[in-house]
Amino acid sequence: MSATNAPPPSGPSTLCGQPDLPWSGRGTSLGIFGCRFSLYPMTDRYAEVILSALAETDASKVFAQTDALSSLYRGKLVHVIDALRGLFARASRPGLHLVMEGQISKGCPGDSDGDSFLAEDDLPLNRPGIADLRLPVMAKIALYPLGAQNYIDLIAEVVRMAERAGLNPRTIHYATRLSGDLNRVMDFLEKVSRFVEPRSNHYVLTFTVSAGSPTQETP
Amino acid sequence: MSATNAPPPSGPSTLCGQPDLPWSGRGTSLGIFGCRFSLYPMTDRYAEVILSALAETDASKVFAQTDALSSLYRGKLVHVIDALRGLFARASRPGLHLVMEGQISKGCPGDSDGDSFLAEDDLPLNRPGIADLRLPVMAKIALYPLGAQNYIDLIAEVVRMAERAGLNPRTIHYATRLSGDLNRVMDFLEKVSRFVEPRSNHYVLTFTVSAGSPTQETP
Repeated sequence: MSATNAPPPSGPSTLCGQPDLPWSGRGTSLGIFGCRFSLYPMTDRYAEVILSALAETDASKVFAQTDALSSLYRGKLVHVIDALRGLFARASRPGLHLVMEGQISKGCPGDSDGDSFLAEDDLPLNRPGIADLRLPVMAKIALYPLGAQNYIDLIAEVVRMAERAGLNPRTIHYATRLSGDLNRVMDFLEKVSRFVEPRSNHYVLTFTVSAGSPTQETP
Repeated sequence: MSATNAPPPSGPSTLCGQPDLPWSGRGTSLGIFGCRFSLYPMTDRYAEVILSALAETDASKVFAQTDALSSLYRGKLVHVIDALRGLFARASRPGLHLVMEGQISKGCPGDSDGDSFLAEDDLPLNRPGIADLRLPVMAKIALYPLGAQNYIDLIAEVVRMAERAGLNPRTIHYATRLSGDLNRVMDFLEKVSRFVEPRSNHYVLTFTVSAGSPTQETP
């Protein structure tokens, strides 16, 4: 298990975890993607579900940290997505309503090269074990490209990408709904990140992935 | 109970729930704040907790809608915050680990004046009943002012506001941790929205509020 119990956050507050750096813009030239995320298993045994999924997920190619509210994976995009994918797959089980919420991000002007492993190769550790998994999920996403006037164009293109990916995008206030298989949704989050990253110095892609919801929505 | 079971999202996809409008910029001149949010009660009885809290919260001064992933309150800021506050208070109970995640937003260029009640007065409906509630929570926030180059300055000022509000802001990657009483955290979300709204045509303020977590963080 690579996730560690983090010491409580401390020190003066600023952005992106670098309290003592001026806005250096360094974040935009680094290859570090990150995701802060939380798992919500709607069961009395939530702690056991979360801890065992964290333990069973191979996060050895990312920097991983857990506090009382959320966890963090940082590193190469392929490994951040792979660890998220593995974690959700490990935590899910028949009859359990499980939700993961997270924010994939890159380029915060205050980011630094700490808390990340970038020397790794590009071979995902978790995907091979769940490549055949068929897990239908409902999802929503919202994309926030920061510091740029053309952000609406990027968002609109991502919605079209979801359509082409067969993820049935539907507009709701403040987000876009998706539905499909877990692996296809996770592939899409990776694809969106690769599309937006060279077009926006700093972006945040928020997502919610839900399995096993008892709520029926009539088509 | 004002929350209704929404029909499934349908129609062509675009932003902010207005599939047939061009990017009109109308959103920036409307007074409509909105919040898409989810409650996560970590218990086998999660459905009962969510549905009873929605039923006990007076959301009659906002437009409210629920789908399988999240719910929506839209209207005047005072009432959106008031309904969120009431909902979390109603859902919380001793021994329950309860989390709410949401995004408060205003100004999407594709927004319209639909799905909102703006004719209401400014008297909150839920706060009087829970003004004396003392509910310690852990929280995190992230602010995304969109379409503007100066977004970092707004974010930095909001962190300073949290310090002045006594909410112990601490930096973590991609977010700012807060801690304090539920009512003070909700007051702060309202204050941040009032501060950012005139300074950013379009912004999103994401938040996580957590009560009853068993995870200990040593100071």
